[in-house]
Amino acid sequence: MVGMHTPDAEMARLASKALLYSIDRIRVDPPPLGAPRPYEELLEAVGQTITKDGITGAEALRLFTEVLAPSSISVDHPKFLSFVPGAPTEASIIFDMVVSAASIYAGSWLEGAGAVFAENQALRWIADLADFPASAGGVFVSGGTAGNMSALLAGRHWWRSRNEGRHDHTRGLIMASKGAHSSVAQAARAMDADVLLVPADERGRLVGSALRATVDSMSQADRDRLFAIVATCGTTNLGVIDELSVVADVAQELNVWFHVDGAYGAAGLCAPSVRHKYIGIERADSFIVDPHKWLFGPYDSCALIYRNVHDGPRAHTQHAEYLDVLHSEVDETQPWLEMNPADMAHHLSRRARGLPLWFSLATHGTDAYADAVERTLKVTKQGAEEIRSRPYLELLLEPDLSILVFRRLGWTPEDYQRWSDKQLYSGESFIVPSSWNGETVLRFCIVNPRTRRQHLIEILDSLAPEES
Amino acid sequence: MVGMHTPDAEMARLASKALLYSIDRIRVDPPPLGAPRPYEELLEAVGQTITKDGITGAEALRLFTEVLAPSSISVDHPKFLSFVPGAPTEASIIFDMVVSAASIYAGSWLEGAGAVFAENQALRWIADLADFPASAGGVFVSGGTAGNMSALLAGRHWWRSRNEGRHDHTRGLIMASKGAHSSVAQAARAMDADVLLVPADERGRLVGSALRATVDSMSQADRDRLFAIVATCGTTNLGVIDELSVVADVAQELNVWFHVDGAYGAAGLCAPSVRHKYIGIERADSFIVDPHKWLFGPYDSCALIYRNVHDGPRAHTQHAEYLDVLHSEVDETQPWLEMNPADMAHHLSRRARGLPLWFSLATHGTDAYADAVERTLKVTKQGAEEIRSRPYLELLLEPDLSILVFRRLGWTPEDYQRWSDKQLYSGESFIVPSSWNGETVLRFCIVNPRTRRQHLIEILDSLAPEES
Repeated sequence: MVGMHTPDAEMARLASKALLYSIDRIRVDPPPLGAPRPYEELLEAVGQTITKDGITGAEALRLFTEVLAPSSISVDHPKFLSFVPGAPTEASIIFDMVVSAASIYAGSWLEGAGAVFAENQALRWIADLADFPASAGGVFVSGGTAGNMSALLAGRHWWRSRNEGRHDHTRGLIMASKGAHSSVAQAARAMDADVLLVPADERGRLVGSALRATVDSMSQADRDRLFAIVATCGTTNLGVIDELSVVADVAQELNVWFHVDGAYGAAGLCAPSVRHKYIGIERADSFIVDPHKWLFGPYDSCALIYRNVHDGPRAHTQHAEYLDVLHSEVDETQPWLEMNPADMAHHLSRRARGLPLWFSLATHGTDAYADAVERTLKVTKQGAEEIRSRPYLELLLEPDLSILVFRRLGWTPEDYQRWSDKQLYSGESFIVPSSWNGETVLRFCIVNPRTRRQHLIEILDSLAPEES
Repeated sequence: MVGMHTPDAEMARLASKALLYSIDRIRVDPPPLGAPRPYEELLEAVGQTITKDGITGAEALRLFTEVLAPSSISVDHPKFLSFVPGAPTEASIIFDMVVSAASIYAGSWLEGAGAVFAENQALRWIADLADFPASAGGVFVSGGTAGNMSALLAGRHWWRSRNEGRHDHTRGLIMASKGAHSSVAQAARAMDADVLLVPADERGRLVGSALRATVDSMSQADRDRLFAIVATCGTTNLGVIDELSVVADVAQELNVWFHVDGAYGAAGLCAPSVRHKYIGIERADSFIVDPHKWLFGPYDSCALIYRNVHDGPRAHTQHAEYLDVLHSEVDETQPWLEMNPADMAHHLSRRARGLPLWFSLATHGTDAYADAVERTLKVTKQGAEEIRSRPYLELLLEPDLSILVFRRLGWTPEDYQRWSDKQLYSGESFIVPSSWNGETVLRFCIVNPRTRRQHLIEILDSLAPEES
């Protein structure tokens, strides 16, 4: 047989080159920052790569390493502090590569038992971080958007089941704070549900007083269709943690699903110095945390944990002739150990995307994770000091976790943008302007243990007024 | 700095071992089939891998290669013919490994321009296969479930926009055939929409007569809330193609969104011998195809293509303070070349999951893809001949594409299951029983160019009556 499924010497050489490039890329510190180029420029440099006969792997690899990769920003650069950066460990990347090679379908126990078994040990560690009971279980999905929606779908299904048909066609309602991630509103939009926004406090947090005031002012109709409250531990813009205990109280009083979005921030659960800020998460019905953010894994992966593992499949199991073989009887009074990950969320085909975290955790141990998160928290505190020590800057709030939001005195939005562009296109740093109460500000999100105080000093110094 | 973000000699040795294992795994032909083991057995063999201090990478890798990988089935085994197998090219796997190492966020042009540029060339090839216009565009999402839902969300948004608020709170309705994939019903469930099932013809296809009869019998209320018709090109269970042209006619008459689910089957668009069966797909508003199925890529990836690239972002763009910087003004009268993949579907964080297909396509050229798909179609025909030539077997329908469904005369469901288990646990093949009109039957899904006639003969011979 000839064709692209037959190994040959040329492919072997290509594989060696590609893997050497990969190893270099993992190890280089810092990696090149990279910067986007306009479409027309890329087309000029790259041309049409999809042809009848192929352009050879060597040429495709050259185009990637010389043009395309440098036109993409390295999220693991120590001065990439925009959005939420990434900082995968070498162990996690190496194992992501093993997963690429392994051709395992990790959606069912029947097909992927070994992979699922290991993923479940990593999920159990995460569940334990939140003090979840033995009944807990979950799945790694592609990202926070998928995780939040899958959790809310499970919540809606639970609510409707409890109401025995009365609410099967009722438009659902979710309460969340103004600091909630955009994916909560997006999930509601997809689900044809509504979001009732609770005003945040002056630090951007969902607190008990505002939540109770909103509940008190709800109409009975809205009360009847409320099925979930979403709290956030580590909001994306400000990195603050909602009052989880009070939210848990209210959710319990109202008998609605309590979901905690910890896509970025729940990683802090493993850091002793901030663990107390999360009290109340142990009462959630579900929560998420993204290993590709602050748990040092590669894209893309979100751990979704249900307090009761059976709440997932009740909402998400897909049925078909060709799938029936996967679904044996499950004793719902017991934790489900041979679960099908596909049944736990809104997905079916899936990569074993939890294995990179599993492997890195198994390799380094959980203490190393605590240390790495603590390190970023310490650098964040140092950054706050550095900001406070500069008269041209103003720290806008004390960090709960690892996000710093601050003002450059006297700057217009255009000044911020000009500075940000200059930093990016000179290869210095990637820090886009954000906003705070409608004002353009700067924001550092520090999840990379390779980000050091000195990096922050260099960035902050570049904001100084020019000497006249 | 000490810790898991510091390269050291031990990690370098581990990386070498893991990558050598990976290369061997990619090249071995056939790979070991693998088979699941019960949870208790795996726990006995593996123990607790997540500890305070770590078990070392060498031990974690050993557990994976010796216990966990063999407890997972290799989807690329030439005798894995259940569900929809996979058969990634070496080029696609190698590049998936490069993607693991590259730490690129491929959700926005700003952050991932180079990666997005290349993904878009692969998407354009797919759009061209379906004769989509220059206005087309799309994104790679994690799988068919995400792709179908994202397309239907775009369709519902388009429908509601067209109705200027009149249907913003109307429960939507989707028409699909009984052969549609389970994810269509699952999407409707998530979206709080309903599915009106159209009876399939005797081959399992959605045909014009049944579709028109169903439309004629709809209530006006249902007609008012109908926003999409879903057709399938290559149903999962039977591999048949709906009458796409007639469905396109009806969708046009009713002025509703026309989505084609080609998760498995649309790969056949690149095979000249069957291309004519897809006529009508060029009139769809959206379609999907999964590269991890019959386009020879690794897990997990689904290409979602919109006829008009702007239909995606209108439905899916997420808004937040920290995201505003990504959203510049876009001229909606033009194709959008610097699009943000995150805006195209229900997701935000994303791996550059289209790059493995891009790299393999660029390396081998599109003719190699046509050849590989044609090869599987030819082997399917040979399989049909082999089935027909055996008196103890009965082919239940002529294959449209690469799925064979047949009966073992005289067997009970238990006979099928016993045979299937024996094949799996002896390392021979992985073929689970499926069902056809309520009867337990066997089903081969042939998407692996390494699957040869001889493999099918061996499997079919094992079904022969024992000589007495």
